[in-house]
Amino acid sequence: MQDTLGAFVPGPIIQRAPYSAGSLSGLSFAVKDLFDVAGGVTGCGNPDWAATHEAAKADAWAVDTLLGAGASLTGKTVTDEISLGLLGINKFYGTPLNPRAPDCVPGGSSSGSASAVAGGLVDIALGTDSGGSVRIPASFCGIYGLRPTHGRISVAGMMIQAPSFDTVGYFARDALTFGRVGAVLLGQQMSDALPAEIIVAADCFALADEPVRRALQPVVDRLRDAAATTVSALAEGELLDWAHHQRILQRSEFHATFRDWIDRVNPRFSSEVAGAFADEGRIPSSDIAAARTFRESASKRLDDLLDGHRMLCLPTSPILPIGRDARLSDIRAAVHRIVDLTGIAGLTGLPQVNLPIATSGSIPVGLSLIGWRGGDAALVGAARSLAREFSVGQFEELA
Amino acid sequence: MQDTLGAFVPGPIIQRAPYSAGSLSGLSFAVKDLFDVAGGVTGCGNPDWAATHEAAKADAWAVDTLLGAGASLTGKTVTDEISLGLLGINKFYGTPLNPRAPDCVPGGSSSGSASAVAGGLVDIALGTDSGGSVRIPASFCGIYGLRPTHGRISVAGMMIQAPSFDTVGYFARDALTFGRVGAVLLGQQMSDALPAEIIVAADCFALADEPVRRALQPVVDRLRDAAATTVSALAEGELLDWAHHQRILQRSEFHATFRDWIDRVNPRFSSEVAGAFADEGRIPSSDIAAARTFRESASKRLDDLLDGHRMLCLPTSPILPIGRDARLSDIRAAVHRIVDLTGIAGLTGLPQVNLPIATSGSIPVGLSLIGWRGGDAALVGAARSLAREFSVGQFEELA
Repeated sequence: MQDTLGAFVPGPIIQRAPYSAGSLSGLSFAVKDLFDVAGGVTGCGNPDWAATHEAAKADAWAVDTLLGAGASLTGKTVTDEISLGLLGINKFYGTPLNPRAPDCVPGGSSSGSASAVAGGLVDIALGTDSGGSVRIPASFCGIYGLRPTHGRISVAGMMIQAPSFDTVGYFARDALTFGRVGAVLLGQQMSDALPAEIIVAADCFALADEPVRRALQPVVDRLRDAAATTVSALAEGELLDWAHHQRILQRSEFHATFRDWIDRVNPRFSSEVAGAFADEGRIPSSDIAAARTFRESASKRLDDLLDGHRMLCLPTSPILPIGRDARLSDIRAAVHRIVDLTGIAGLTGLPQVNLPIATSGSIPVGLSLIGWRGGDAALVGAARSLAREFSVGQFEELA
Repeated sequence: MQDTLGAFVPGPIIQRAPYSAGSLSGLSFAVKDLFDVAGGVTGCGNPDWAATHEAAKADAWAVDTLLGAGASLTGKTVTDEISLGLLGINKFYGTPLNPRAPDCVPGGSSSGSASAVAGGLVDIALGTDSGGSVRIPASFCGIYGLRPTHGRISVAGMMIQAPSFDTVGYFARDALTFGRVGAVLLGQQMSDALPAEIIVAADCFALADEPVRRALQPVVDRLRDAAATTVSALAEGELLDWAHHQRILQRSEFHATFRDWIDRVNPRFSSEVAGAFADEGRIPSSDIAAARTFRESASKRLDDLLDGHRMLCLPTSPILPIGRDARLSDIRAAVHRIVDLTGIAGLTGLPQVNLPIATSGSIPVGLSLIGWRGGDAALVGAARSLAREFSVGQFEELA
C-alpha cells in the first residue's frame, strides 16, 4: 500500500495479521496513533510525546477486538497533537489529505484514519472522539463515522484526553461495512430500522452556514417523507450554552491530564494546540461546578426527549471544511463554530453517527443522527436503513 | 572546528573571510542566527520561521563591521526561538552546552554564541539583548558580555523582537579581546579607567540568592578598596516595579512584532515560548500607558543618578544557572527572577557589562556594571580596568 495521502504515521510501519477468521475477514483497518499496539510507542501526533513514552506492552481493546474478528491491521494514522484539534492539522507530521476535497482540511483529530478510509487505503479505521474527533473528519471526508455512547466501547489502551468525554469511534466508507464493524465493536447484532420518530433540530440547522443548510435541505425533505419526523428546537435560544459548558469541562479535564507531562517535558506544540493551554489553571472552579450542573440537566433533558425511541437530526458541522492553508485565527474560529454542534452529544455523552449523505459542489456535507443513551446499535441500524432508503452518494455502495 | 557543544545551527555552515586586515585580524567570530548573513536564511531558532522567510540579501551591519575589521566568520549559532527566552533552551536544535557548567543551561537567548566563546570554538560572538539575552549567557558561561546603550550599535539586518528594547551585543573570553571588539563596534577608542564613583546597588544584591551574594561579596569588598564606592538602594522597596513594567512593554512590543506571522503560519513553539503569547491582546492599554510613564521617570532617575560619571554595580543574575532538565514551572520561575535584575538596564536603555569575576563552586557568577547612557566605551574601559586590578578568574588572561 502506497500512502499517497500522508495518512499514516511516518517511520516503521506497524502491521498485524488477524488472530482468527471472523465477520471482518478480508477487511483491512488502520488505527489512530492514540491506540496502543504492542511493541511500538503510541506517539499521539507529537514527537515530544513519542520521545517521552515507552513502547506499549499490550494492544488496545479495540485493536484486539478487530484483529479477533478477522480484520488485518495495516498501520497507525496521523492525529492532531495529543488529540487536541478538530481540523486535522498537524505541523509535525503533515496534515493528511482530504481525498474528497484536496484543498481542504480532512477534519480531526482522527484525521489520518478518515483520510485513509475515504481514500481507499483501508476499509475501516479506529478513531477517538471527545469533542467531535470522529464526527468531523467523517463529515469533511464524506464517510460514515460513529461516536458511541460514552462508556459503551472500552477505551482500554487508548490515550486519555478528557475522561468524561473520551470515546472510541470508527469509520467506514459504506453502510455495509459500517454495520459489520459496529456489530463487532458493540458486541451486538443490529437490525436496519428507522426510529419511531426523528426530530429535526431546527435550532441546530439555524447555526449552520448557508451552503451546509442548502446541501442538507433536500435530504431532510426526503427524510420527512421516509420517517415519522417532527421539526422543533432543541434548546430555543440557549443552544450555544451547551457548547460553552462542553468547552469548560473538556478543557479542565485535559489540563488535568496533560499538566504534569507539559511541566516535565516543556513539549513543542503548534500555536493552535499551545493555545489550548493558554488559560491553564485560570478556569474558576465555580465555572466548572456550574458546567457540571448544566451537564446533568442537559443530559436529563435529552434522555427524556429521546426516551429510547427518538433520534435527533442535525448537521454534523455547521461549516464546510476550511482551506489547508488557513490562518490561525480562522482555525480557531472554525473550531469554535464546530463545537457549537458537536458539543451537544459531547456534553451529554450520547451516541452520534455521521451520514455521508450530501455535498456542496464537490465538498462533502455530513448529516448526523444523535441516538438515545446506549442506543448505539439502533443508531447504526438507522444509518444503514437510511442508506438503503436514499441511495445517494456513498449510500449507493450498499447493494 | 568540531562543534562539540551544539553551539552552531545544524545544517550548511555559513563562513566568511574578512574583507581586509584590521584590529581584529586573526580572530574568529560567530553570529547568533538572528543576524543576516547574505545568501542564507536567518533562522531565528525556529524551523517554522526558517521555512517562511527568504534568504538574506545583505549582511547585518554588525557582521559587516567585524568582517571589515579583519575577523573571520565561522558560523551561525543557536538561539532561543525568535529570541524569546533567557536560559538557552531550544527544543528544536538542542540546548547548547555550558562549557563551564555542563549540567546547567548556558543562558540565552544568545546561547550558542556564549557557549562557542566560553568553549573556545571562536574568539568573539555577536548576540542580541532585549531583556537580558547577552548579559545572562555571559554570566552563566563565565565570559565578558556587553549590552550597549539602546540605539548605540546599529540593529540593521537583525531580527526585530521588541524595538524599544532590542540591542546588538557581543561576547569575548578575555578583557583584551573584549576591549578590541568594543572599539570596533562602538567606533570609538577607549581608555582603561574606573569611573569617578561606583554605586553598589544594595537592593539588587538583596534580590539575589545566597550563593550568588556569597560568591560576589569578596569581589565587591575588593572593589570598595579599588574605587570610590558607595552602597545604596536603587529604588528602596520598589525595585520589582522596574521589571514589572519591562515585562509589560517588552511583551506588548513582541506581540505586535510576531502577531501576524503567528496568525499566518501557526508555528510550532516549545511550551515555554508559546506561553509568551498566552495573553496575546489581553494587556490593557492603560497598563501599557502606565508602563511608558514609569519608564520615562525611571530613565530620568538613573540618568540623574549616573550623570556621566557614576556606574551601578549589581549581580548580573539573581540566581545560579538552573539544570538543563528543569521543569517548565522552574524555567518560568527562573526567567521571572532574572528579569527582576536585567529589567533595570532593559527598561531604561542603559549599557551593561558582565564581568566573569566569581564562581560558586565551579559555577560562574557574573558581576555587572551599568553605565550612563552613551557611556559604552567608558563601561568597557572600566571592565578592562577591573580585569587588570583584580586578576581573578578570566581576568588573568589579560597580560
